Amino acid sequence: MKTFHIALIPGDGIGPEVVAQGVKVFKAIEKMDDSVSFTFEEFPWGCEYYLQHGKMMDEDGMEQLKQFDAIYLGAVGYPGVPDHISLRELLIKIRRGFDQYVNLRPVTLLHRKLTPLKNKTEKDIDMLVIRENSEGEYAGAGEWLFKGKPEEVVLQTGVFSRKGTERIIRYAYEEARRTNRTLTSISKGNALNYSMVFWDQVFEEVGREFPDVNTYSYLVDAASLYFVEQPERFEVVVTSNLFGDIVTDIGAAITGGMGLATGANINPEKTYPSMFEPVHGSAPDIAGKGIANPLAAIWSVSQMLDFFGLEEWGKRVFCTIKEIINHEEHLTPDLGGKASTEEVGDYFVNLLMQTKELD
Amino acid sequence: MKTFHIALIPGDGIGPEVVAQGVKVFKAIEKMDDSVSFTFEEFPWGCEYYLQHGKMMDEDGMEQLKQFDAIYLGAVGYPGVPDHISLRELLIKIRRGFDQYVNLRPVTLLHRKLTPLKNKTEKDIDMLVIRENSEGEYAGAGEWLFKGKPEEVVLQTGVFSRKGTERIIRYAYEEARRTNRTLTSISKGNALNYSMVFWDQVFEEVGREFPDVNTYSYLVDAASLYFVEQPERFEVVVTSNLFGDIVTDIGAAITGGMGLATGANINPEKTYPSMFEPVHGSAPDIAGKGIANPLAAIWSVSQMLDFFGLEEWGKRVFCTIKEIINHEEHLTPDLGGKASTEEVGDYFVNLLMQTKELD
Ligand SMILES: CC(C)[C@H](C(=O)O)[C@@H](O)C(=O)O
Ligand SMILES: CC(C)[C@H](C(=O)O)[C@@H](O)C(=O)O
Repeated sequence: MKTFHIALIPGDGIGPEVVAQGVKVFKAIEKMDDSVSFTFEEFPWGCEYYLQHGKMMDEDGMEQLKQFDAIYLGAVGYPGVPDHISLRELLIKIRRGFDQYVNLRPVTLLHRKLTPLKNKTEKDIDMLVIRENSEGEYAGAGEWLFKGKPEEVVLQTGVFSRKGTERIIRYAYEEARRTNRTLTSISKGNALNYSMVFWDQVFEEVGREFPDVNTYSYLVDAASLYFVEQPERFEVVVTSNLFGDIVTDIGAAITGGMGLATGANINPEKTYPSMFEPVHGSAPDIAGKGIANPLAAIWSVSQMLDFFGLEEWGKRVFCTIKEIINHEEHLTPDLGGKASTEEVGDYFVNLLMQTKELD
Repeated sequence: MKTFHIALIPGDGIGPEVVAQGVKVFKAIEKMDDSVSFTFEEFPWGCEYYLQHGKMMDEDGMEQLKQFDAIYLGAVGYPGVPDHISLRELLIKIRRGFDQYVNLRPVTLLHRKLTPLKNKTEKDIDMLVIRENSEGEYAGAGEWLFKGKPEEVVLQTGVFSRKGTERIIRYAYEEARRTNRTLTSISKGNALNYSMVFWDQVFEEVGREFPDVNTYSYLVDAASLYFVEQPERFEVVVTSNLFGDIVTDIGAAITGGMGLATGANINPEKTYPSMFEPVHGSAPDIAGKGIANPLAAIWSVSQMLDFFGLEEWGKRVFCTIKEIINHEEHLTPDLGGKASTEEVGDYFVNLLMQTKELD
């Protein structure tokens, strides 16, 4: 019997509501499969915690998390706590502190009714965006000089290390090779004359080790346009932290919205736990109303199962997500249904019990 | 008789083909209106020039351009010359050297058939993006350390000055007030913990002078999503250099592609000439084939006429662009037609002669 230890950080806003549905999925799998079990320990960290304790997580929070196989995060951020505190001291702290340098974001259209694009179907939108997740534009380096004076100037420095750039690009090449897909790099060498020229150079260099992988390289502005005009151009995509943030939200837009967007923050070496999260954020406007869509959080479960080596289960959860999309009356309002978050979770589990692999 | 002196830099790729059509429009206006005239001087600068002379423009190029009322640029960039040279030493050099700190990019759907979005019409997509155009992420500041060593690290620094940030934001507030529209700022304070926190602060500060303007503030990732999901949220938009680059390409995508995207690089004080350009780039793949869409370049003419204070003509050119979209047989292939670049230009001029203001 394999046991996986999962740290739950439900966090803020709709986080707790959607994570609860994901946990139901794990429990259902335990029931169906004697060979696996999951333990959960919940951490009350987030903005409420901050307002009470003056910090987003415990002093020794990273130490506490270290022992787990994975972290399942709901959402972080809430009115009253500045984002640059709430996120940098929890979400981004974990991503960087645990060297989760690979952010895997599928951009997959589950059903053609979900895309706002004319004439695009499931076969046109099916890519994996691999986002650098540990440095780059998010390094947090900068200066704020002459505050309040006319000569005030603020500097924000992106940090692109050889190690950091090479490892994410190599990871992407390996993924493209493994799955026999093309690889597209997104950068901006014509304007960011240091970092992105370097990025392009590393993309080319590492590419020499992968002559079998077909590659493309787009400027971020052109890529953003193509995500909308011709998403079929993309299969595996590799890009920097900031550009990955932006293009994956365009990816969410073309596949039916943030309610279906998931992200895995991976430390491939497994030196530290990896973290899995829906990327919709805390959505304070709908928090507590029981209408948050839990499918992104459930998709995170699928990614976590893959990561645990339980690919059959990962695939089955994914196929059930694809299936439930056809049952409109059992979806939340953002997907045209009338079900509550809880009801979607319960119905999902029922469906999962019945679903064979669909592919 | 008012005379306006225009410097032509047709540049690379399809640049010369489309600029030639724009020039036809000016000549037609001269014929119809005795009170204005335009002079043109052409500069052969660009990538071909670079390959022959080792530089993108003459040593004293900026000096030569200074005397003109406006610069009409086609496109810059061609295979064989690295983008970070061709663009930084011509396009970006002029933007910055002439302190053209306002980049005005209309994102306006001319006809519902042009958008790839389901259920969106002309009334849903009609905004003006005001992009900071002189500093920020494009400042060109950085370091490339330990080249070729394992500890190699590349730094790219965005530079946000009080002066630069305030003036673009104030310009945007004034435009929103003048046209009685909402103003949306796009930033990323939750990750870019210096520059974008500063940006947000200035947006708020300057806003106190404009209590009559309704404002919104979005993260760049959310804004990118909304451009696709709900473009009707946006009226006047203000954002940084890089974010403006990205979101205006999404803007192009939702309004029918780069063949209809124009940008005015404005020095509001008129200390230096302003520059007008279609933003599609040199499109080497279709250069010389006579199929490039000249309508973006013609839209630049409309922007230039507005800038000259000839708003009636600016509007009439714009209305003719709206009108020609209905004449599919007279459009280039990218818009579903079969006409050549030249034919579109000639037909446009005919139509302009007949068109009254449509609005
Ligand atoms: C919340 C925010 C800091 C985060 C990011 O920018 O990475 C989010 O947008 C994401 O995509 O995971
Ligand atoms: C060509 C390039 C340097 C330029 C930019 O990034 O500003 C272009 O994309 C634009 O939008 O005008």
